[in-house]
Amino acid sequence: MDYKPVSPELLQQFRLIVGEAYILTDTDDLEPYSHDETEDLQYYPQIVARPQSADEVSALLKLCNENYIPVTPRGAGTGLSGGALPVKRGLVIAMERFNKIVKIDEENLQATVEPGVITEVFMDAVAEKGLLYPVDPASKGSCFIGGNVSHGSGGPRVVKYGTIREYVLNLQVVLPSGDIIWTGANTLKYASGYNLTQLMIGSEGTLGIVTAIVVKLIPQPKYNALMLASFTTNEAACGAVSAIFRAGVIPSTLEFMERKGIEWVIKFDGLVFDLKDGIEAFLLIEVDGNNQDVILENCEQVNTVLENFDCKEVLFADTTAQKEELWRIRRTMPVSVKSNSVYKEEDTVVPRAALPVLIKGIKEIGAKYGFESVCYGHAGDGNLHVNIIKGNMSDIDWNTKLKDGIREIFKLTVDLGGTLSGEHGIGLVQKDYMNIKYTDVHFALWRGIKQVFDPNGILNPGKIFAPSPLKGGIEV
Amino acid sequence: MDYKPVSPELLQQFRLIVGEAYILTDTDDLEPYSHDETEDLQYYPQIVARPQSADEVSALLKLCNENYIPVTPRGAGTGLSGGALPVKRGLVIAMERFNKIVKIDEENLQATVEPGVITEVFMDAVAEKGLLYPVDPASKGSCFIGGNVSHGSGGPRVVKYGTIREYVLNLQVVLPSGDIIWTGANTLKYASGYNLTQLMIGSEGTLGIVTAIVVKLIPQPKYNALMLASFTTNEAACGAVSAIFRAGVIPSTLEFMERKGIEWVIKFDGLVFDLKDGIEAFLLIEVDGNNQDVILENCEQVNTVLENFDCKEVLFADTTAQKEELWRIRRTMPVSVKSNSVYKEEDTVVPRAALPVLIKGIKEIGAKYGFESVCYGHAGDGNLHVNIIKGNMSDIDWNTKLKDGIREIFKLTVDLGGTLSGEHGIGLVQKDYMNIKYTDVHFALWRGIKQVFDPNGILNPGKIFAPSPLKGGIEV
Repeated sequence: MDYKPVSPELLQQFRLIVGEAYILTDTDDLEPYSHDETEDLQYYPQIVARPQSADEVSALLKLCNENYIPVTPRGAGTGLSGGALPVKRGLVIAMERFNKIVKIDEENLQATVEPGVITEVFMDAVAEKGLLYPVDPASKGSCFIGGNVSHGSGGPRVVKYGTIREYVLNLQVVLPSGDIIWTGANTLKYASGYNLTQLMIGSEGTLGIVTAIVVKLIPQPKYNALMLASFTTNEAACGAVSAIFRAGVIPSTLEFMERKGIEWVIKFDGLVFDLKDGIEAFLLIEVDGNNQDVILENCEQVNTVLENFDCKEVLFADTTAQKEELWRIRRTMPVSVKSNSVYKEEDTVVPRAALPVLIKGIKEIGAKYGFESVCYGHAGDGNLHVNIIKGNMSDIDWNTKLKDGIREIFKLTVDLGGTLSGEHGIGLVQKDYMNIKYTDVHFALWRGIKQVFDPNGILNPGKIFAPSPLKGGIEV
Repeated sequence: MDYKPVSPELLQQFRLIVGEAYILTDTDDLEPYSHDETEDLQYYPQIVARPQSADEVSALLKLCNENYIPVTPRGAGTGLSGGALPVKRGLVIAMERFNKIVKIDEENLQATVEPGVITEVFMDAVAEKGLLYPVDPASKGSCFIGGNVSHGSGGPRVVKYGTIREYVLNLQVVLPSGDIIWTGANTLKYASGYNLTQLMIGSEGTLGIVTAIVVKLIPQPKYNALMLASFTTNEAACGAVSAIFRAGVIPSTLEFMERKGIEWVIKFDGLVFDLKDGIEAFLLIEVDGNNQDVILENCEQVNTVLENFDCKEVLFADTTAQKEELWRIRRTMPVSVKSNSVYKEEDTVVPRAALPVLIKGIKEIGAKYGFESVCYGHAGDGNLHVNIIKGNMSDIDWNTKLKDGIREIFKLTVDLGGTLSGEHGIGLVQKDYMNIKYTDVHFALWRGIKQVFDPNGILNPGKIFAPSPLKGGIEV
């Protein structure tokens, strides 16, 4: 069987399931669902459905499964790897009406939340109870927590608090068959069969659609301190990163930013900042906890380390406003860099001590292929986002040569013990590089798992390890 | 095809692969491999092989796969769910020669370790470098880290530091096909395809054999404080548990012990302890960190909470020797309880605020079915080990009625939002209870995943969700 378009009869059934008002078919209505935050890519779905319950998702999926309709689940559309792009058309299931915080359980320090809740909205709600949900991607103000689950998201605080993988306890998932399951239990430990919760996290909507999420919460730390350290070279900044841990300090964030990143925030976001000559790189370092003396002590330890890495200046944020201003630099950097030019963003991750070699290599590869790059990211995790800027590169080079350059960057990443993506996922735009690290054996296991969950290959086709062998027109 | 016994020709091939000295066939030599620490169960394998390298494991597995020989991987044999019992005979692959700490990478705070290294040996080796590997099951002095991976192990410090799931970064795995893969990357984050590392953790040797493990390390905290709090009721002790977290303290351990557990340590381990009348339960509470003032402050916060829960006494350990003595009580409790009688141990886990209801229910179920139980465990995680003692129960009741009682305990556990095992695994002895929580859909997904990795069903047959449907005599 080949994938099928949605017939008028089927469309009518969709309308009966979710209600007339929540089925979109006009081109203008479909447009917002035709792109995410990935470069300038655009793919229109045939239809968008906006269900509100697991039962509705179940009924939709069952019909699509029986009729070989490709289905692309969609969160807030803030993804950077094209995971939400409906490359085979078909149906987009948009999760924006799953927007309820079902329960904040203060006794157990857990919460149940629907996948269409904006991450920051959820963080704020638990913060009001004195609790912390620490998984805060740069897009926290607009991304959905369901998308975070699907991508195994991180953010600046992973370095101390871990990724979303360490917070999700249990998931309600609708399978292509229409079956609705809970993947695990609402417990901090789980040793009861293969861990389906962990398998779903980072599966990018290819195995099932998440309709409810149970997460662990922790007590909100009372205090934090934030400092911005400036360095004459990228290598010095990156070198300081692993030394801070070796000194026994676990910062709550440890972010790297290139000078150019700051320049573009100044240019595009109106930042007022005294950017000194000779400074090439910055580390934004936060420590948090419940005791001011300990935080001060940690800051001193960090300072001592920085002195050994040719750090030119350390700026302490004294007030909440100053802290917000420093964070604004980091948080607006992605959009500032991207507003400048056509770009591609790659999400590299290596063991953290390999960062200096990685960043040096990225610049050398750029020089070889004639592209400029701006790097920033979660240096404490060894996670560097590499923004490749088209700038003056010719269209021909951009569309042909560049791919070889990116391949070299990923090759270097893998050679350093790393992998292609730390938190953005593989989606559409990284899948062609997966064979740099992974073998036919990995692909066979992944495809086998995919077949178990989605035998007809309807869920988010064309992603991660696709193109797969086809059976008829269906990816298997 | 049915499972086959190992033919003399195949045995000769095994000898060529691992060397004559490392193939055991005599009954006396096989005896140590015929049981683990699970009750009084005993199953002899036909043959034991003791390979030393991934290549040797690969060659063995390939032959067994081609010849339908059941293979049971074995660590130190300290498991409590019968996971290492060769219930279908065949070949036991004993991992004890995989006993090297390959590398402690102080720059990246990572280590590479073989699966046959004793957990405590590894902990001590990293502690010498000022680093902490915090996953310390009660059996840390004898269990293997490979077994810990296979069971998703925890231990007392999970409450602050997380389970082994949060420390394993990458695994070298041999598949039944003989293929050797690394499941992921040596990175703190990973969003590059389905997470095979997490899938392997807790899979109890049914998907592949782990031959090398890369783990994350953290800085060793400098100080800790340990206190033993006594309560007049189990419910009061369990009730205090979630209140401690709500007060904003995350202890590094928070262990529950019933009075009877202490009585048996006194009786069987020669403990000198002033066990006061009216005391029914204890919490062993540790806080750790790098600042003595903060630790003291945390202890005071804990104390304030305890006062609200009818705590009768708090004993502070002032010296290292006193700390060791308190830990000895907890660590020797399992063996002391078990030396007393035939027993069964069940590993329940619930959201932590449900502990008082769980323990009350366990006692009521015991009264109904006529069995005595001794409970202890990692209360901070909601994880309670329930030791059911045969005592005066008749053999008939023990062998028939008891199963219904255990089923009721697990039913209660599941009703409270929990699951059957938090850290011991399902193995052989819990598998019949899996259908209390899990549906045919779960079983179909698990079996599907099993088939992808192990299409001939040779790896650790008869465990977790077996008995499976048979194709010939092979579980699929």
